[in-house]
Amino acid sequence: MAVRVGSKVRARVTIVEQGRARKRLDHLTTEEPLEIRLQAGGQTKTVAVTMRTPGADFELAAGFLYGEGILSERGGIHHISYCVDPAVDPEQRYNIVNVGLHLPDLPELTTLERHFYTTSACGICGKASLEAIEIRGCPRLSPGPEVSPALLLGLPEKLRQEQRLFDATGGIHAAGLFNAEGDLLCLREDVGRHNAVDKVVGWALLNHTLPLSHCLLLVSGRTSYEILQKTTVAGIPIVCAISAPSHLAVDVAQKFGATLVGFLRGERFIIYAGEERVQFD
Amino acid sequence: MAVRVGSKVRARVTIVEQGRARKRLDHLTTEEPLEIRLQAGGQTKTVAVTMRTPGADFELAAGFLYGEGILSERGGIHHISYCVDPAVDPEQRYNIVNVGLHLPDLPELTTLERHFYTTSACGICGKASLEAIEIRGCPRLSPGPEVSPALLLGLPEKLRQEQRLFDATGGIHAAGLFNAEGDLLCLREDVGRHNAVDKVVGWALLNHTLPLSHCLLLVSGRTSYEILQKTTVAGIPIVCAISAPSHLAVDVAQKFGATLVGFLRGERFIIYAGEERVQFD
Repeated sequence: MAVRVGSKVRARVTIVEQGRARKRLDHLTTEEPLEIRLQAGGQTKTVAVTMRTPGADFELAAGFLYGEGILSERGGIHHISYCVDPAVDPEQRYNIVNVGLHLPDLPELTTLERHFYTTSACGICGKASLEAIEIRGCPRLSPGPEVSPALLLGLPEKLRQEQRLFDATGGIHAAGLFNAEGDLLCLREDVGRHNAVDKVVGWALLNHTLPLSHCLLLVSGRTSYEILQKTTVAGIPIVCAISAPSHLAVDVAQKFGATLVGFLRGERFIIYAGEERVQFD
Repeated sequence: MAVRVGSKVRARVTIVEQGRARKRLDHLTTEEPLEIRLQAGGQTKTVAVTMRTPGADFELAAGFLYGEGILSERGGIHHISYCVDPAVDPEQRYNIVNVGLHLPDLPELTTLERHFYTTSACGICGKASLEAIEIRGCPRLSPGPEVSPALLLGLPEKLRQEQRLFDATGGIHAAGLFNAEGDLLCLREDVGRHNAVDKVVGWALLNHTLPLSHCLLLVSGRTSYEILQKTTVAGIPIVCAISAPSHLAVDVAQKFGATLVGFLRGERFIIYAGEERVQFD
């Protein structure tokens, strides 16, 4: 997939060490807005603008729409393309992705609208918006695989070895999808950790491998409500993170039966939910 | 300020170490939605729902609205309060903040609307949304203070000493505001790093200390476009981070004349923009 700018940018920086300054060329992680637009029945509608690292933009758009419940299967997609309208500023052309649906009309996007922007009288008092932060009609996760502590402890190094943008920039999130044998299936990097997860889920959607009920996901940072929402909708039973979960990430994991592991570093980790999938000798 | 839930939650976890599992009580960072609503002329409108760590909610609401250009001074605020409508689920009562404005009507929120949700024909092609990601009418930052490398190198330890929630949970962002002598003025923690910055800016707004043209801000993680947008609108001339900036964070810093420092760890740091404010002997 062609992208206008790369995923990293060269920049001249000043390194200060022991009171002395020296110039050096360095790499920065690219951050650009991506506008995701739906098309159906001759109409177009913007559904989100997210700050992201260019690369895997079609996967990001597909994964985002899947997580939001707007897209439920690969077959629902008519086309995914960059906006080629000549009226668009060439600089922005690769920052707009159109997702065409096999539908006569654009779908109602009440959930999304509530997510981002609501007009309500005080009697309603925002309950609608807060309820929109529920996981849309998701069933409990299937039992899925059982894994050993040793398999989990080996995941961070496998992720780290493939984090090419992190190697260059030192500052970018990663999400890696593994099978139950611990083989890395897909790794995506992004300035936004939610985008990295969307890219992985979008990859699975476009490759017809959803739901990911036999997989593990490892994220390079912390886990939040939003991350667990996305992994749960994608059917991932085991979610691991290098750093800590929030209390709501743990709540979602418990409610939907996910295994949630945190602080997966060195020779130890913490299980926050679903420990029945971790098998000791 | 009373909050329904604390900023941390106790949880029973399983620690796995050297192949053995043991149970322990641990603390998790609380993550809850906060709905921010504007009130004026008898009308109420929701402008944002953000996932945040409870605490300093009024500062968060004020800082968010300031960053978005909806609020420009303390005097514009009629009231800030939790929603006390009896129709609201008691569980959500402390998750909704009403900000009353001294205005006859609710302001036009076109920028915000464009931010989150747009309907546009393909001819417009999302340019509006992408342009909305500009910093609203912000002047170039004033020259502001000059600081020594030693002062900068001392900031992370000062921040770390006051990160109470990080001490308890090991997983929460922090933003600390310092004066030009390196004294910590205000520290806020949150699951969202943008929220931590909003809370600091909101603190300054509510305490009549904006613009922060003589201050330094240190954030515990990375710097993105969004962080620089908020610090620039608040007039902060020196922004430091423990980790890396994105390329767009550097772009904003250069465009508006901010000093941007990254990888401020141990005995070294990197200057990405505005190095004239760092004075060597």
